[in-house]
Amino acid sequence: MISVKRPTLLLSRDICRKNIHAMAVKASESKVIFRPHFKTHQSAAVAEWFRDEGVTAITVSSVFMAQYFAQHGWKDITIAFPVNLREIDEINQLASEIELNLLIESEETAIFLNENLKSDCGFFLKIDTGYHRTGISASNVLLIDRVLYAANFSKLHFKGFLTHSGQSYHAKDRQELLRIQQSATENLLRLKKHYHLRYPDLILSVGDTPTCSQLPVAAGIDEIRPGNFVFFDVMQFALGSCTLEEIAVALICPVVATHPNRLEAVIYGGAVHLSKEQTFLPPDPEPVYGLAFNWNGKNWDTGNLLGKVSCLSQEHGIISLTQAGCNLKPGDLVAILPVHSCLTANLMRKYIDLDGLVIETMNT
Amino acid sequence: MISVKRPTLLLSRDICRKNIHAMAVKASESKVIFRPHFKTHQSAAVAEWFRDEGVTAITVSSVFMAQYFAQHGWKDITIAFPVNLREIDEINQLASEIELNLLIESEETAIFLNENLKSDCGFFLKIDTGYHRTGISASNVLLIDRVLYAANFSKLHFKGFLTHSGQSYHAKDRQELLRIQQSATENLLRLKKHYHLRYPDLILSVGDTPTCSQLPVAAGIDEIRPGNFVFFDVMQFALGSCTLEEIAVALICPVVATHPNRLEAVIYGGAVHLSKEQTFLPPDPEPVYGLAFNWNGKNWDTGNLLGKVSCLSQEHGIISLTQAGCNLKPGDLVAILPVHSCLTANLMRKYIDLDGLVIETMNT
Repeated sequence: MISVKRPTLLLSRDICRKNIHAMAVKASESKVIFRPHFKTHQSAAVAEWFRDEGVTAITVSSVFMAQYFAQHGWKDITIAFPVNLREIDEINQLASEIELNLLIESEETAIFLNENLKSDCGFFLKIDTGYHRTGISASNVLLIDRVLYAANFSKLHFKGFLTHSGQSYHAKDRQELLRIQQSATENLLRLKKHYHLRYPDLILSVGDTPTCSQLPVAAGIDEIRPGNFVFFDVMQFALGSCTLEEIAVALICPVVATHPNRLEAVIYGGAVHLSKEQTFLPPDPEPVYGLAFNWNGKNWDTGNLLGKVSCLSQEHGIISLTQAGCNLKPGDLVAILPVHSCLTANLMRKYIDLDGLVIETMNT
Repeated sequence: MISVKRPTLLLSRDICRKNIHAMAVKASESKVIFRPHFKTHQSAAVAEWFRDEGVTAITVSSVFMAQYFAQHGWKDITIAFPVNLREIDEINQLASEIELNLLIESEETAIFLNENLKSDCGFFLKIDTGYHRTGISASNVLLIDRVLYAANFSKLHFKGFLTHSGQSYHAKDRQELLRIQQSATENLLRLKKHYHLRYPDLILSVGDTPTCSQLPVAAGIDEIRPGNFVFFDVMQFALGSCTLEEIAVALICPVVATHPNRLEAVIYGGAVHLSKEQTFLPPDPEPVYGLAFNWNGKNWDTGNLLGKVSCLSQEHGIISLTQAGCNLKPGDLVAILPVHSCLTANLMRKYIDLDGLVIETMNT
């Protein structure tokens, strides 16, 4: 029995390791490099479960995260975030110690690195295949040429083209997801064909969890970088990337008040625990911030929905109860499956496994 | 000059102390108890600036926060959150050390405290005056009587009625805010009249920042508990509670990419720094996650809007640029005024003042 007084983020090793194993098998069977993104768990201990599956190359989203994992023995790290020029000292330090790959998408950054990089360093060109967050448009060969030229006389070594099809998080169904994947793949393959003679070893790297979870790896892709699948969450459930049983983390929260007249319970568990990320579970038109299930002190039970987290304040959560949740009373505990496990994990800073052991993260 | 490499939360002492002073003066002139909520800043150092204004009684939103401020010399604390029965040991410890007030809204909780409380402890009844998050409906005198009865034979001492008119965060204009305040006040005054003979010393406590900032304190109210005003933020600006110049915190973020063709810049600064809280700035129909202004290394300048933060990922922010923001380039720094300073402060865990000194919080 795990004793919980305050909101506590539990992590099921079993579910998590199954998620890791399944993706590792998929990558292996598809003969692609598996370079998982570690921004979701941010934990050296969880990282070891990847190592057990043969993973040696990883992705992170900040220099600080790269430093943390480098300190924990990871020697091949891609920082999948546009280079922050202000951290050049830290980048130089890392590049002298491990195989580091950076992400470049502008001439300014390439020129700056040319002038300031002191050790050999790989880089990917970030390609925008439709998400329109970062990257060079896949059709803008002129700009790609200019950036490659600007990066050509330095310690920078071109590794390939990298994209993140984040628009997959808005795909309405599998067909739309497939179209997103096909379009991204076609764009990347066209670039590979175009640059293949100049860079025969260039690789194509893709990375969103919905595509990597729900679809086979597209032919011609060389590397996958999914991250969220390690835990999954209610958003991925809503997208069809996972079942509820595959969600590996749950926030255990005390009930502090109930309002049977409006079918609501109030939990100690708010925006500072779950994050304000919301998702939709059609046909319900209202957003949810989490799903509440029974917690028996040892396991959570996704067979019996107690309610939906319908509102969050700083420390409060409001659960809109189902019939099954109507017996809740102050002092009871519920398990909340989070909408976005990456943000919840970041806020909670550590996990407790189902044996009650603390699993630390870089934020603990 | 303050050196910034990564997203860094700056706190202007001058602006913050002015905000504190203004509210302290308002409370003093209105002859009400000023019991500020410390959930926004969560910092013993900032708390001292309140002490300088004569504040001795405070509000917090968790037992943990009460413990932290008790350790820093605060002797009169209301935990304005429904009692978490699972923290009874911590509550007993606190009640033995300081003047502690709890919040009760159910018979179950009153009975539990009757049986388990070991030291004298004050309590407020949480009254719902229209927000419908927590509390007993102001018209439900039957339930109020039952809870008071259940709490009547113990170490519990009834202090009064407390409400949080959180619906003020959705008020469209000053008129609506006024209606919210009037309705809440009428409800509370009716209760005071009803219970005055039995509890001649009972007080009425209110606490939301929009009402406390924008309106005079209503006649008959005995205590105000605003919190957010200490920093204010873009949400309060949108509500008319403050000017942009009164916002005391700004997240300084490096620009890592620009996309002039779509008038966007990408910053290192995302949901793990700002939080996913959004607000609306009419007539713009799209939500914003922050406002970007110029940062010269010493101060931010709210006179010149560089853009609106239109989208947040875990570490990325997208700024939709104004003309003034079009010259940004990778490596530049911008100052982001946050939408919800409480959540940003909680995520960032510490502040840097404009002299470059670290100001710690309970999360540092």
